[in-house]
Amino acid sequence: FSPPLDSDYADAIDGDAESTASKTIYIVSDGTGWTAEHCVNAALGQFDYCLVDHGCPVNTHLFSGIDDAEKLLEIIRQAAKEGALLVYTLADPSMASSANQACKLWGVPSTDVLGPITDAIASHLGVSPSGLPRGALGRSFRLSDDYFRRIEAVEFTIKQDDGASPGNLDKADIVLTGVSRTGKTPLSIYLAQKGYKVANVPLVMGVQIPSTLFQVDQKKVFGLTINPVVLQSIRKARAKTMGLSPESRTNYFDMDYVRGELEFAGRLFAQNPSWPVIDVTEKAIEETAAVVLRLYHDKKHKCTMPRISKRY
Amino acid sequence: FSPPLDSDYADAIDGDAESTASKTIYIVSDGTGWTAEHCVNAALGQFDYCLVDHGCPVNTHLFSGIDDAEKLLEIIRQAAKEGALLVYTLADPSMASSANQACKLWGVPSTDVLGPITDAIASHLGVSPSGLPRGALGRSFRLSDDYFRRIEAVEFTIKQDDGASPGNLDKADIVLTGVSRTGKTPLSIYLAQKGYKVANVPLVMGVQIPSTLFQVDQKKVFGLTINPVVLQSIRKARAKTMGLSPESRTNYFDMDYVRGELEFAGRLFAQNPSWPVIDVTEKAIEETAAVVLRLYHDKKHKCTMPRISKRY
Ligand SMILES: Nc1ncnc2c1ncn2[C@@H]1O[C@H](COP(=O)(O)O)[C@@H](O)[C@H]1O
Ligand SMILES: Nc1ncnc2c1ncn2[C@@H]1O[C@H](COP(=O)(O)O)[C@@H](O)[C@H]1O
Ligand SMILES: [Mg+2]
Ligand SMILES: [Mg+2]
Repeated sequence: FSPPLDSDYADAIDGDAESTASKTIYIVSDGTGWTAEHCVNAALGQFDYCLVDHGCPVNTHLFSGIDDAEKLLEIIRQAAKEGALLVYTLADPSMASSANQACKLWGVPSTDVLGPITDAIASHLGVSPSGLPRGALGRSFRLSDDYFRRIEAVEFTIKQDDGASPGNLDKADIVLTGVSRTGKTPLSIYLAQKGYKVANVPLVMGVQIPSTLFQVDQKKVFGLTINPVVLQSIRKARAKTMGLSPESRTNYFDMDYVRGELEFAGRLFAQNPSWPVIDVTEKAIEETAAVVLRLYHDKKHKCTMPRISKRY
Repeated sequence: FSPPLDSDYADAIDGDAESTASKTIYIVSDGTGWTAEHCVNAALGQFDYCLVDHGCPVNTHLFSGIDDAEKLLEIIRQAAKEGALLVYTLADPSMASSANQACKLWGVPSTDVLGPITDAIASHLGVSPSGLPRGALGRSFRLSDDYFRRIEAVEFTIKQDDGASPGNLDKADIVLTGVSRTGKTPLSIYLAQKGYKVANVPLVMGVQIPSTLFQVDQKKVFGLTINPVVLQSIRKARAKTMGLSPESRTNYFDMDYVRGELEFAGRLFAQNPSWPVIDVTEKAIEETAAVVLRLYHDKKHKCTMPRISKRY
């Protein structure tokens, strides 16, 4: 499930052209708004069957950095006018209760996304929430080891992309391998943002595979595969955006070639049975990432049930 | 706020060494778990003052792809044993109510992260949620235009990184400029994941700035700045991880040089007053991203209140 970006749409939304059938959700945060947006996104997955493709579009408007009551009330007033639903995350309890009261007064349905979980954590820990939004004065942002580690992971991963430095595979936490357009690059970047150094090794029929792939710790190698029909369509789309002329490397999305290359990869995977092979067909990048990380952590720390553990 | 990755910690957690003072949160999803993890992360920001640095660490265990009642109950039983809090997202109403009942029965405090927002959206739209988890059979994953656009944005951004192709700045949606270690690369990648093509142009004292920076649509150019003391410490850390010898390019983190380079950047920004200048000191990447996107969308679509609009 991936929502269209605004660009073209927003013009329509901001203008008079707004369809009367569409519904609006206002998202408000005293921080970035990404948490509430993530939740709205996931929740809208439950309504796929009636969204834009099915005649019931939903418009969202995200307001970030809303840290004073005046701005907050202005937005809620506007939400009331548009008949919108309000979804918010406000750390300051007086801001949260202002939101709640204004919504009641003006008849705006609303949901506090983090209130319940914050309360549950507070009673679990036996301490009170600070009530300070991120970025508030008085809070100090730490440049933690983890902060640097994530940045390093992203930079490492960019440099290793597309098999750029097979000599550095041993420095990676995770090594992905698969044929062109199995999503190695976006998956690598997604994992890098979570703090893992990722290298990816492209498999191309007739091109020598770097021997380091077989020499590094085999527990960190993952194979990616995909349905040939889907791969063909992705490669066609790719060739179009790249502006490849139909003559140049036509076999790139030729069905026999696509199948042949997947079989070539499949034989390699069969010869290396310790590599988990993940079928990315019908999976969003973050879904494949979840599978990779579940397996990765399970190999590192055998538990009854695979899990990813952290300490805060 | 950035949580330490598990690696070293998890060994302690999985072993007997678990501190009695630490509290545990179980995160369960029938999907990837990223939504619930994001929420726990943000909510824990409210308890910064008592987390690991202050003697009250919190351990989280994330269980993804939990799509049958048996696995679910096993996890809840384990949560009960450990005295953990359970945070979950389960689309199937019968799974959600199993979770709820088991938690009551075994005395596990729990929070359903998306239940309330899904219900609010359902009554706002006047339709029922599908009850189907992502990845469930019967749901079809669409390779949408937006899906391809995001992947293209990531690939474009990687290729443009570090001023690699100044001739392509016109193809970018957003152009970032600033001195070394103002976070251009991780910020570019963060924005790319949200579907924006980003190019970044490094400013280095004494190095010619590509003329294309002044020729492209000036509405998409953003300057990054940072406090010199903080920049120095980041550059020192960087030099260490890069293994730079103290002799090689020592001026990189020499205070006079750092100040000089920031002043050089500052003069350039003053000469180009249409570029917003964002101070990244004390900002997490996602916070800077929120500021950039708020300004970017505000320039494109003037509204009473800056906002980011999408259609689903
Ligand atoms: N590190 C943090 N410290 C305090 N509050 C935070 C932190 N991170 C997120 N929050 C709060 O969690 C909510 C969601 O954050 P955001 O995703 O930035 O909108 C907002 O109310 C933020 O103020
Ligand atoms: N595209 C989608 N369609 C249906 N349900 C979804 C979708 N995306 C997320 N969800 C549900 O939202 C919750 C959070 O998803 P996740 O972040 O993958 O754990 C889970 O219950 C998912 O099943
Ligand atoms: Mg938020
Ligand atoms: Mg989740």
